[in-house]
This record gives sequence, C-alpha cells and structure tokens, in this order.
Amino acid sequence: MVRRGILIILSSPSGAGKSTLARRLMEWDPSLRFSVSATTRAPRPGEVDGREYYFKSRAEFETLVKTGEMLEHAEVFGNFYGSPKAPVEVAMGQGRDTLFDIDWQGGQQVRNSALGRSVVSVFVLPPSIAELERRLRARAQDSDEVIAGRMAKSRDEISHWAEYDYVIVNNDIDSAFAELVTIVQAERLRRDHQPDLSDFVRTLNQEFESR
Amino acid sequence: MVRRGILIILSSPSGAGKSTLARRLMEWDPSLRFSVSATTRAPRPGEVDGREYYFKSRAEFETLVKTGEMLEHAEVFGNFYGSPKAPVEVAMGQGRDTLFDIDWQGGQQVRNSALGRSVVSVFVLPPSIAELERRLRARAQDSDEVIAGRMAKSRDEISHWAEYDYVIVNNDIDSAFAELVTIVQAERLRRDHQPDLSDFVRTLNQEFESR
Repeated sequence: MVRRGILIILSSPSGAGKSTLARRLMEWDPSLRFSVSATTRAPRPGEVDGREYYFKSRAEFETLVKTGEMLEHAEVFGNFYGSPKAPVEVAMGQGRDTLFDIDWQGGQQVRNSALGRSVVSVFVLPPSIAELERRLRARAQDSDEVIAGRMAKSRDEISHWAEYDYVIVNNDIDSAFAELVTIVQAERLRRDHQPDLSDFVRTLNQEFESR
Repeated sequence: MVRRGILIILSSPSGAGKSTLARRLMEWDPSLRFSVSATTRAPRPGEVDGREYYFKSRAEFETLVKTGEMLEHAEVFGNFYGSPKAPVEVAMGQGRDTLFDIDWQGGQQVRNSALGRSVVSVFVLPPSIAELERRLRARAQDSDEVIAGRMAKSRDEISHWAEYDYVIVNNDIDSAFAELVTIVQAERLRRDHQPDLSDFVRTLNQEFESR
C-alpha cells in the first residue's frame, strides 16, 4: 500500500515568518511538494509564472473554480487566490507531502474538503504586533495606507489561530523552524500516516505462526 | 490558565524496548511524572515498593478499584495491575505530563476515561519476532514455558497496535528514542496543549487596539 501524502497547511499573518519557514522546510525535505497558488493579481517584478504563482485572468480563474479544479480559493484585496487540486492529488498518490502557504480562508476550505482527513495545520504567531509591523515595514517600501491594510488583514488572520492543530510563536526563526520540523516528523510517525505498518504487522504475525 | 498535563501512554510487547524508552524519556525530561503501577504480584528481588510498583494485597487492590481510585486496571497472568488515579490528576493540574508504561488493556481504559482527551498513545513494535524472542531470552533465566507464555502475551499485545496514535518500530534504540522525543515535543506544540496561547493572543489583540 502506497503511503498517502499529508497536506501541511502553514498560515500566519504576513510578517510572522511563514514564507521563510516554508522555504526552509522545502530545503530540509526536497521530497515535499510546495503547492503553488493560482492568482488573478498581476505579477510583481521578478515573479515567474508557475514558481511564485500561476498567474491567471479573472475569467480563467473563475472557470477553474466552476470546473472544480481548485481545492480552495478566496478573494483578498480584490484579487483571487487559490490552490489547484490536481497536483495535490498526484503528490498524495505518490506518498509525497504537500506544503500549503495559505490563509485561514484557504485553510478552512482544505480542512473541510474531501482531503481534510490528511491535513496537518500549523499557525505561526508573531512575538508581538510591534514586531509584526516592524517586519512588514522593513521588507517593502509600502505606503502607510498599504501597511494599515496589511495590519488589518493580520488581525483578521490572527483571529483564526484556534482553528489550527499546532501553534508556533515565532520569537526566533531557528527555534520556530526546529518546531515546524518536529511537527512534520511526528506527524509522519502517526499510525494513520504510516500505511506500510499493516503489511509489517502481517509479517510479524506470520513469524508468530511459523514458530 | 495553568497548562493541563498530557498523558503519554507507551505500550509494546515485552522485549520491544518500552522500558528502556520510558527510562530514557524520564531522564530527558525530569519534569515528566512516571505513573507507578499498583500490582498484586509479589515483589522481585531488588524491587522497592513505590518505585517499581505499589505492592498491594488482592483485597487492598480490589478496594482501590471499588472506590474508583484506579484509572485503569487489568489482570495479567493471574495478577492485578493498575494505575492509581490521584497522582495523575495532581500532575495534570500542575501542568506536568505523565508517562504510563502500560499494556493495551490499560491503554484502552485510560483513553476511554474522563481524562481520555489528554492522552497521547505510542505503540512500540519490535523489528521482528525472532528479535523479540532473543531479547526476552537474553534478559532473564526464564523457563521455556514462561517464555512461551510471554510470547503469546506479546502476540496479543501486538494485535492492538492499531488503537494507538503513533507507532515506532524499534530497529535501533537510539532512533526509536529520538522518534519518541519528537512525538512528545510535537504534542506539546498542539494548540490544545498550550492553554497559555489564549492569554498571549489576547495581548496581541490589546496591542492592535492600542495602535
């Protein structure tokens, strides 16, 4: 029996370190598949279609939703974002785990989808709101208005922390990453994520029989 | 809010390494409380009352069961074994995790008790039955008849592997121990095992309010 991959959902307000954690987790285990989202927002300089996002027109995106090809989707700041379903199912069938860097709306939808039983969800909290704002301001030359919008979105995101299986407070990125790795390693030791065990126990029983 | 301790149940057939893993886990985290079982079997040379077991007469044990002072109990090879409830509740209230080295019968009862929501259960499998028997023979000068009895009990124990949250195959004691530590660390990162988070998120929200 081929192991079914786990769906690892990582959510957090922007500035809490989620993208760094996701990148480091992908480096830590190259067998992980990163779920590249589709979006209707315009590419930013340096972004490559199929790497950061699959860039879609609004009409294309709506068709993907209508034909059931999106595992989850939501509208944020006037743009659609969503996770294509097919690559996730392929990865699961190959026994590969998929990492989702999505918000609470996406998290809810994946948890409530047909694949919900395979979800492990992790929420990353910032050590403080002052630190969250500092990180948001440090990384982009956004206007105060844009920052204010992101902070409001952050507050909304944080309000959903209690829907997640695990919570990491990112005081220190190395400790937070170590905690994330621990969670993934432990989840892989869960009985229901180790389907080969049934066959293994069968061999143990055969050994008992032949004594 | 004081964190409620977790109940870590470790089960395995004898010879699979459970006692070594339990001992090393206690050394790894001295804040863990080991649940000392009560038993009606006679003390073996070197065993100290209250350390290896609480040694009880059959009448005393039956009274403890009748008065609801045992969290779980079962009869094995004609002797009663069980886990006293009060010290577990004290440890939980102090936010300390308790480690149980008990069999599947005890595991079932603790999982189905009022404290079941706090249980994390781990089953340890041997790499093979030949290895299990070798370990059983190596550690005691037991008769073939006693060994045969233990092997039958082992087979019965292994048949309950699928009732556990996590499964570790003990090919190598160091790897198995590392896996056990990973499980305990990850469980402590579960949202419902970190009750202080509610207060922490409240402070984040206050920070949003006062911006």
